[in-house]
Amino acid sequence: MLIFREEIAITSPIRFVRDDILKLTPYMPSKESCDIKLDANESPYDVPIEIKERIWKRLQDEHFNYYYDPSCDELRESLSRYTGVKPDQIFVGSGGDEIINDIIMAFAGPDRDVIIPAPTFSSYEIFATVAGSNVIITPIVREQKYGKEIWDLNTQQIKKHFTKDEPQLMFLCYPNNPTGDYFDEEKVIDLINNFNGIVAVDEAYFEFGGKTFTDRLSDYPHVIVIRTFSKIFSLAGLRVGYAIGHEDIIKQLYKVKLPYNVSLFSQIAAVEILKEMDWFKNTQSKFIKAREQLKKGLETINGLKVYPSSTNFFLCELEKCRDMVYEELLKRGILTRCLGDDALKNTLRFCIGTPEQNEILLSYLREIMS
Amino acid sequence: MLIFREEIAITSPIRFVRDDILKLTPYMPSKESCDIKLDANESPYDVPIEIKERIWKRLQDEHFNYYYDPSCDELRESLSRYTGVKPDQIFVGSGGDEIINDIIMAFAGPDRDVIIPAPTFSSYEIFATVAGSNVIITPIVREQKYGKEIWDLNTQQIKKHFTKDEPQLMFLCYPNNPTGDYFDEEKVIDLINNFNGIVAVDEAYFEFGGKTFTDRLSDYPHVIVIRTFSKIFSLAGLRVGYAIGHEDIIKQLYKVKLPYNVSLFSQIAAVEILKEMDWFKNTQSKFIKAREQLKKGLETINGLKVYPSSTNFFLCELEKCRDMVYEELLKRGILTRCLGDDALKNTLRFCIGTPEQNEILLSYLREIMS
Repeated sequence: MLIFREEIAITSPIRFVRDDILKLTPYMPSKESCDIKLDANESPYDVPIEIKERIWKRLQDEHFNYYYDPSCDELRESLSRYTGVKPDQIFVGSGGDEIINDIIMAFAGPDRDVIIPAPTFSSYEIFATVAGSNVIITPIVREQKYGKEIWDLNTQQIKKHFTKDEPQLMFLCYPNNPTGDYFDEEKVIDLINNFNGIVAVDEAYFEFGGKTFTDRLSDYPHVIVIRTFSKIFSLAGLRVGYAIGHEDIIKQLYKVKLPYNVSLFSQIAAVEILKEMDWFKNTQSKFIKAREQLKKGLETINGLKVYPSSTNFFLCELEKCRDMVYEELLKRGILTRCLGDDALKNTLRFCIGTPEQNEILLSYLREIMS
Repeated sequence: MLIFREEIAITSPIRFVRDDILKLTPYMPSKESCDIKLDANESPYDVPIEIKERIWKRLQDEHFNYYYDPSCDELRESLSRYTGVKPDQIFVGSGGDEIINDIIMAFAGPDRDVIIPAPTFSSYEIFATVAGSNVIITPIVREQKYGKEIWDLNTQQIKKHFTKDEPQLMFLCYPNNPTGDYFDEEKVIDLINNFNGIVAVDEAYFEFGGKTFTDRLSDYPHVIVIRTFSKIFSLAGLRVGYAIGHEDIIKQLYKVKLPYNVSLFSQIAAVEILKEMDWFKNTQSKFIKAREQLKKGLETINGLKVYPSSTNFFLCELEKCRDMVYEELLKRGILTRCLGDDALKNTLRFCIGTPEQNEILLSYLREIMS
């Protein structure tokens, strides 16, 4: 609901709210109850109880009453081994969300331009708006490639917004959420080469697709990579994300973060989960296999077009009314996601569940779409 | 170290940093190792192991892999019982720090004035600077009251900065950190009555002093109270804080917060600790008793003047060089805090430890000050 300042009673404290905040709608994820939760790109696999117990074994001896390490030293050491970059090139935050926000505060903030090729992850636009940045949304486009319809960048359109005088910030979600796949690599590199500012490459879904810019940072010191423990590592509830970049860039993020941004529990949980590489690899191969199977199944459903995915979710174009499909799935206990973007008005997004969940999804979709 | 933009090499990615961020020094708490940690106003009492185990009993059955409640419903219900206000008047964040930051983003942000009577808690100034707000620092003053020297507000000076056209934001730390006691209540109310904006009353130390504005919010709908689990509740490592205010004001904070700002572990830990009211009351009375005893001891030390405290720490004025006293205490294993403010250049701040820790502190202080 839009509130206009003139309509606010003189006695209401709302009159003290910033104009640009007054207009915003709060981001509130669905609280629908369901049997199978496929709306938020989470992993369907909880952390196994034996790993939970190892986390607890460490936690119970820690002091809850003291503020915990503000620079996440132990976790950065573990991440250094996992990613192959130096600890000083790593910054840890409270989920990918905080990383995105801190990048905006350090490199954009009031009045600077933030370029966002969209549809994409909605936090970029929301946080940049709250920061008072000048948000520039440039539409991504549907293209034919190798006989398939894919979503890609329109580099010519994007470059029209590049300035050579004032530094800017650009977000590239790679692979892109909610469309599901990588943008063309040459186009991404062309944009990076021509940009006068920081390029934040969001690799939240890295472990499902494998492409990364972390090994090319010496060529692109103005690139910051964003990663998360919320997807393949099954720690969405714990809020841990990290950034990888040039040491000098990483140092700036410490200036804008909250002093104790990552809780004791979250730091320890992330350190412990990184020791579980067998579990991790096993989970990873389960996902890759399930993705292939789910894709094959989806391709047999009439009136449903599935876009390629290098993530743990699929975006599908529907010939039937997508709100109807969403509701019918929900009635049957499956929660999926309708995106608000105009370009996605006929699409539905759902993440990859367990093989059993995927079979149920497929059978309901067949039923609803027939 | 100050870096000037002209000195930055054209190849360095630092040239993309915001000017006002480039100038900032990151807030990095002391990492000195010590036997007795009295520098950060934490509780010396860890959460007892039986309460830790009750927290874990709940946690092990929760899904680590799903994002957890973005509106902290269960915790707001518990807090409603603890504080006596309605759940809709409560907003939960990742420590008092996030609450402060969200208040700044909703009600100040780029170019609006943030008035901060100081010396006070440093986060107000840091976060307001990062937000691009216009920070107005107004000095608090030393006054004689009932034959004692105290720190109080200079309302005349502060009011000179009040505008009647543009809304503003003002922080009042009540009781004030690092000076330790409440400002005069009539002065606070006079400022609140005359201010055209939001007054954020930081009650982080409420449980050590007992005064609050939460029961006067119907008179002052433009007041937001800030509280924390980091002090008396011994959960500093877990990052949970909350705001209490008018429902319409509280709603705005949901627009600027990170979507999943408080982790699963932290929400559950706070819910469980609020069930432990016997432990809480026992801890509270231990603090009150220890504060009296420590104060009596401090008053017998020559060359040391102790300011009144309604918190869990003391600020002391020293006749000897305070950096020397700090270093001598550190050599003996006790970590205290030197504040950077000019007005506090002869002072040392330390929090109240266990009775045993306080005795050790007193004996070392006697030795060093003699």
